[in-house]
Amino acid sequence: MRIGVLTGGGDCPGLNAVIRAIVRKGVGVYGHSFVGFRDGWRGPLEGDTVPLDVGAVRGILPRGGTILGSSRTNPYKLADGADRIRATLAAHGVDALIAIGGEDTLGVASRLSEEAGVPVVGVPKTIDNDLAATDYTFGFDTAVNIAMEAIDRLHTTAESHHRVLIVEVMGRHAGWIALHSGMAGGANVILIPERPFDIDKVCALVESRFATHYAPIIVVSEGATPLAGTMVIKDGELDAFGHVRLQGISGVLEAEIKARTGRESRATVLGHVQRGGTPTAFDRWLATRFGLHAIDAVHDGAFGTMTALRGTRIERVPLRDAVRELKLVPEELYAEAEVFFG
Amino acid sequence: MRIGVLTGGGDCPGLNAVIRAIVRKGVGVYGHSFVGFRDGWRGPLEGDTVPLDVGAVRGILPRGGTILGSSRTNPYKLADGADRIRATLAAHGVDALIAIGGEDTLGVASRLSEEAGVPVVGVPKTIDNDLAATDYTFGFDTAVNIAMEAIDRLHTTAESHHRVLIVEVMGRHAGWIALHSGMAGGANVILIPERPFDIDKVCALVESRFATHYAPIIVVSEGATPLAGTMVIKDGELDAFGHVRLQGISGVLEAEIKARTGRESRATVLGHVQRGGTPTAFDRWLATRFGLHAIDAVHDGAFGTMTALRGTRIERVPLRDAVRELKLVPEELYAEAEVFFG
Amino acid sequence: MRIGVLTGGGDCPGLNAVIRAIVRKGVGVYGHSFVGFRDGWRGPLEGDTVPLDVGAVRGILPRGGTILGSSRTNPYKLADGADRIRATLAAHGVDALIAIGGEDTLGVASRLSEEAGVPVVGVPKTIDNDLAATDYTFGFDTAVNIAMEAIDRLHTTAESHHRVLIVEVMGRHAGWIALHSGMAGGANVILIPERPFDIDKVCALVESRFATHYAPIIVVSEGATPLAGTMVIKDGELDAFGHVRLQGISGVLEAEIKARTGRESRATVLGHVQRGGTPTAFDRWLATRFGLHAIDAVHDGAFGTMTALRGTRIERVPLRDAVRELKLVPEELYAEAEVFFG
Amino acid sequence: MRIGVLTGGGDCPGLNAVIRAIVRKGVGVYGHSFVGFRDGWRGPLEGDTVPLDVGAVRGILPRGGTILGSSRTNPYKLADGADRIRATLAAHGVDALIAIGGEDTLGVASRLSEEAGVPVVGVPKTIDNDLAATDYTFGFDTAVNIAMEAIDRLHTTAESHHRVLIVEVMGRHAGWIALHSGMAGGANVILIPERPFDIDKVCALVESRFATHYAPIIVVSEGATPLAGTMVIKDGELDAFGHVRLQGISGVLEAEIKARTGRESRATVLGHVQRGGTPTAFDRWLATRFGLHAIDAVHDGAFGTMTALRGTRIERVPLRDAVRELKLVPEELYAEAEVFFG
Repeated sequence: MRIGVLTGGGDCPGLNAVIRAIVRKGVGVYGHSFVGFRDGWRGPLEGDTVPLDVGAVRGILPRGGTILGSSRTNPYKLADGADRIRATLAAHGVDALIAIGGEDTLGVASRLSEEAGVPVVGVPKTIDNDLAATDYTFGFDTAVNIAMEAIDRLHTTAESHHRVLIVEVMGRHAGWIALHSGMAGGANVILIPERPFDIDKVCALVESRFATHYAPIIVVSEGATPLAGTMVIKDGELDAFGHVRLQGISGVLEAEIKARTGRESRATVLGHVQRGGTPTAFDRWLATRFGLHAIDAVHDGAFGTMTALRGTRIERVPLRDAVRELKLVPEELYAEAEVFFG
Repeated sequence: MRIGVLTGGGDCPGLNAVIRAIVRKGVGVYGHSFVGFRDGWRGPLEGDTVPLDVGAVRGILPRGGTILGSSRTNPYKLADGADRIRATLAAHGVDALIAIGGEDTLGVASRLSEEAGVPVVGVPKTIDNDLAATDYTFGFDTAVNIAMEAIDRLHTTAESHHRVLIVEVMGRHAGWIALHSGMAGGANVILIPERPFDIDKVCALVESRFATHYAPIIVVSEGATPLAGTMVIKDGELDAFGHVRLQGISGVLEAEIKARTGRESRATVLGHVQRGGTPTAFDRWLATRFGLHAIDAVHDGAFGTMTALRGTRIERVPLRDAVRELKLVPEELYAEAEVFFG
Repeated sequence: MRIGVLTGGGDCPGLNAVIRAIVRKGVGVYGHSFVGFRDGWRGPLEGDTVPLDVGAVRGILPRGGTILGSSRTNPYKLADGADRIRATLAAHGVDALIAIGGEDTLGVASRLSEEAGVPVVGVPKTIDNDLAATDYTFGFDTAVNIAMEAIDRLHTTAESHHRVLIVEVMGRHAGWIALHSGMAGGANVILIPERPFDIDKVCALVESRFATHYAPIIVVSEGATPLAGTMVIKDGELDAFGHVRLQGISGVLEAEIKARTGRESRATVLGHVQRGGTPTAFDRWLATRFGLHAIDAVHDGAFGTMTALRGTRIERVPLRDAVRELKLVPEELYAEAEVFFG
Repeated sequence: MRIGVLTGGGDCPGLNAVIRAIVRKGVGVYGHSFVGFRDGWRGPLEGDTVPLDVGAVRGILPRGGTILGSSRTNPYKLADGADRIRATLAAHGVDALIAIGGEDTLGVASRLSEEAGVPVVGVPKTIDNDLAATDYTFGFDTAVNIAMEAIDRLHTTAESHHRVLIVEVMGRHAGWIALHSGMAGGANVILIPERPFDIDKVCALVESRFATHYAPIIVVSEGATPLAGTMVIKDGELDAFGHVRLQGISGVLEAEIKARTGRESRATVLGHVQRGGTPTAFDRWLATRFGLHAIDAVHDGAFGTMTALRGTRIERVPLRDAVRELKLVPEELYAEAEVFFG
C-alpha cells in the first residue's frame, strides 16, 4: 500500500512522534510506502507533497512542531475540494490517508470518508484536550507541565509580595489546561470558560488569601469570561482602540481587581510557549501509540475511524464521534479544584 | 472524625500531594481533624505521631519525599502488631486510618481491615507502576520523564560516538519505567524483567545500529536478566567479591557486549534520582485526586477499599485486589516497543 | 561576634544561598552567632527579628525567595532612621550587619556605613545585572535561562506560523536579560532600554524574517522605548484608561506592528516567573561564594565594602562604588547581538 | 576569504553555537565563505569536507553535538600529517582555519601554526573546564547544571533513607564539575582528582551526617583516587576480571564504605548524559561570543591565537598558552567547599 499523511491545525507537541511511528511501523512491519502532504488539507488539495520514509523521520521524536507543516485550509470551502483531493490521491497512487488534527481537520476527514468515499483514518490532536472521544490528546500534558512550572516559580514571589499574580493559559472553549495546571501548581483561583466567573467572588478569594500573608495566584483560561453585567469596567470602554483583545483576559482581570480592591496585579501570559518545544514522556508515549494504532487501522481497512485513548488502551472510534461535541470540564472535576481555592 | 495518615515503603514523588489533599478537604469540607503517624506502620505501632493540620501541609505540593517519613516496618512480623496498632488508634482517638503505600503497606492495610477490623482506606503508591488494580500510580510519570531526559541527552553522543550507551532504570519485577522511557526516548533496545533477554539478539541489534552510523542506546530495568545459560561471563566469576551486585545489570551488559563484540560501552545509572524531587503535573494531579477521593471514602465509611485510576475517573476497589498480583508488562505492549528496535 | 543579616528589594533566586553560606561559615568556621532582620531595612528599623542558626538554613540552598522576607523600606525617609537602626543593633548586641540587596538597599548600607558609623558589609543583588562594580549578580543567570527556554519553545511555532512572536522580559533600565536570553535563544530582534528602537527598522526586520518562511521572534525588555515621535499610535490614545501601563511594551509593539504591516503578533509576558523558583548552578555558586566572602569581610573588619565578582575571583569593593552608576549594555555588546538580527 | 572550520575531541554542548556564530558573522558581516572539515583533524587530513553556509547552520544553536562530527585523530602521528593538511587547504582554496577543541586539538593547532605556518585560530572546548588560559569553557556550565539537578533530586531521598548516596561525575584530571555541582547542590562530601582522598575521613563525614538524621551525598569525580595504601579492598582484588574499570570510582567507594562502616550505598553514574543535549544560556552565550571573536581574529590575521574569556570580555591569547598546563582546582577554592562538608 501507499499511504498519505497530513497534519492540520495549530502546533501541538507530539505531531512528529505520530508521524515517526506511522512510518516506522508502516515500512518496517507492513512494508507500506508513504507520501507526506504539506500544510494540512492544502497538501492533497494542491498536490503539494514531501518525501516520507524512514530517513525522513529519523531524530524527530523529541522535536515540537511538524515536519509536514500545517494549515487551517478547509477543502469544503471549495466547491470541488473533495474531488480535487480524490484526484491528488489517485495521481500519487495513494491507497489511504491518515489525517492528524483537531476538530476541524477530523471534521473534514469524517466528511471525506462518509460523503466522498476517501479511505481515511484519523488521529486526534488538540492541545486543549477538548475532544470528546478520547481520554487525552497528546500535547496537553506538555502544555500543563509548562504552565505548572510557571506557577511553581510564582509561589516564591507569592510568599513575599503583595501583588496578585495572574497566569493566563490556553483554552478558548474548555478549561482543561487551567484546571490541571492550576491544581498541579497549587493555584488559589482557577477561572475557566465553562464557568463564567463572579468578579466579586474572585476579589473575595484574593482578599482572603492576602489575609494568610501570601499573595494569591489566579490561573485563567484565555477564554474565561465574567458573568454578564458584573464588571465595573464597561465592555464599551474596554473595546476602545481594540485594547481588550490585545490585553486579553488577564489584562481585564488586572484592571478590574485594581478598580475593586486597589490591589496591583502582575500577569504572566504564556502564549505560544505552551504549544512548542519538546513533548513530555506522556505525550510522546501517547503520540507514538496513536501512530502505531493508526497504521494498524489502515492495514486492517478500518477507515472512517480514529484512534482514541481509553484508560491505557488505544481503541478505534468512529470519526464522526470525535467531532460531535466538545469535551468540557464537568462540574464535579471543577469542584475538586475548588477545595483548594482561597 | 479524627483520622490518622501514614506513608510506607520507598520514596515516590507525589506522597506530599496526597497528604495535602486529604487534609485540605478533610478539614475544609468535612471538618475532620488529623494525626500523622511517623515512618509508615512504625508510627501506629509505637505511637509515634506528628501534628497534621492545614498549616503542616502548606507548600508541600511540589516537594518530593514525605513529611510523615516512611519505613518498611511490617506489624505482622510482631505477634501483637495488630493489637498494638488498635491500641494506638484508640489512645489517640483515631476513628479511621489512611495508608499510602505499595504492595507491602497495602497488604498490611488489607489484613488489618479484614482480620482486625481496623477502619482503613488505602492509596496506592509504587514508582514501578506494577499495582494491578489501577491504571497508573503517581511517581511513575516523574520517573519516566527523568529517564527520558537522560536518554534525550545521550542521543547527541549516539550521533557522533562509537560506544554502546546503556541506561539502567528502576524496575525490579516489572519493566514499566524502561518501557515508557525507552519508547518516549527513542531507545534502540529495551530490556525488562518480564522478558529474559537473549544476549545474542542484543548484540545483533547493537551491530545493526552501528551499521546506520549511530551508536545504540540500550535501556535496561535493574531487574532484567539474561536467558539462562547464555552469557559468556559465568555467574560464578561475576559473584567473586560481590561485584555483580555492585555493578548491577548495566555492568554485566558492558562486560558481556565487550566480550562478544569488542565494543566499549558507557553506562548511565540513574539510581535514586528517579524517585526524588518534584513531581510532574500528571503525578501531582493523580496524587491530589487520590487524596481527595481517599478522604471521601473515609467520610462515606468505605473501609477496606483503596483509590484507583480507571481512565480519567477515580474509583474505589477492594484493598485485597490491589495486592493480589503484580501488574507486568504484557506481550502486546512490549511488541509495540519492538517496532523501534535496532 | 553577633552578626545581623537582612535582604532588601525584589525577589532574586540565590538569596537563600547567600544566607546559608554566611551562617554555615560564620558558625562553623568563625564561631559567630546570627540574628535575622525581617523584611529588609524594616527589620532593624522596627526591631523585628527572626532566629538564624544552622538549623534555620538547612535545606534552603535550592529554594527561591528569602527566608528573611524583604521590603523596599528606606530608613532615610525617616528623620531618625539611622538612629533607630543603631539602637536596634545595640539592643540585640549586634556587632556587624550584612545587607543583601540592590542599588537601594546598598545605597542605605553605604550611607549607614559612611555617615552613621554602622559596621556593615554588602552583598549585591539585582536580577537585572545592572550593578556596576561586579561582573555578574546572582539571579540573573536564572532569569536568562527561563527566558531562553521560553524562546526555545517559540521556535517551533516560528517554523510553521505566520505570527510575530514577542517575548517581554524584565529590565526597566538595562537590557541584560533581553540581550543574553535573546542571543542564547536565537532571537531575530532584541530591544533594550539603552537603545530607543526605530519601529520602522523593527518592521523591516520582521518582514525580512517572514521572507525566509520563518516567523520572527522579538525579545523586548519591559523598559524598552521607541524613538520619540515615531509611533503611529499616539501616546495620548494609548494612555486612555491606563491601558498602556497595563498592556506594557509588548502590547504596544503588537498594536504598532499590526498598524504598520498588518501582521498579527502573539506575546509571551513572563513577569515574575523570571525571578522566582530554584536558582541555576551558576547563581547558587555565585551566591554561595558571595556569602562566604561576606562573612570573611565581616571577620576581617572590612566594613563599608561589598563582595564583587571579577573574573572567577570574589573581591571587596567600596559600597559606594556599587551604587554610583548603573551598568548598562555597551554598544559593542549590542552590536554582537545585531549580527543575528533579521 | 575562504575559511575552514573543524571540531575535535569529545562532545560538548555549545559546539554548534560556535560554528553558527562563525558562519553568521563571517558571511553576513565580512562576506567570507566557509568549508567544514569532517571529524576533527581527520577532515583536513583526508580532504573530507561538508558544505558550511548560512543554511547549514540554521536551527543548530540549541542542539548538542556538532554538525561537523568529531574525532581524536592526531595528524602528528603521521610523518606527513602537516603536509597533507596544507595540501588539503590549498586544494580547497582555504585561506585560514578555525579549530574548535580541547588540549589535544589545540595542541595540534598550535604546532601547525608555529611549525608549519598554517594560519589557524583556536576556540577552546573542554567540558572539564581545565584549560588554563580562559576563565571558563562552554559545555561546563551545562554539565554542572545536569549534575546539580541530579543532586537536588537525591536530597529527597537523603531526608528519609539510610543509604549513602554517591554521584559520579566527569573529570579525569580536574575536579571542576564535582566542585561546582557539589557546592551548588549542597553535597556533604566532594572528592576530586587534585586531592587524593583519605577514606577514613570520608567514612567519618558519612557517619557524622547520619548523626543528623540525613543521609550523606558524596559527589566524586571519575578521576578521584584514594591516598596510596589506605583502602581495605586491595587493588589486586579489584583488578580481577577488570571489575574496577567497569564499576569505576563510585563502585570502589560503595565497596569500601560497606567494608568499613557496614553502610549500604546507592550510586548515580551520570556518564555521557553530562555532555549531551541542549546547552544552558551561559554556554550558548559564551560559545556564540567565542565564535564571533574567532572570526574577528581570522579577519584581523591574528593567527596562532585562540579566544579566551577573561571576566566578561573575550580576549585573544597565544594558542601555546592554552595547552601549556592543565587548570586544576586550587586549594583555596576546595577549602570554600569544605565549609559545607559533613
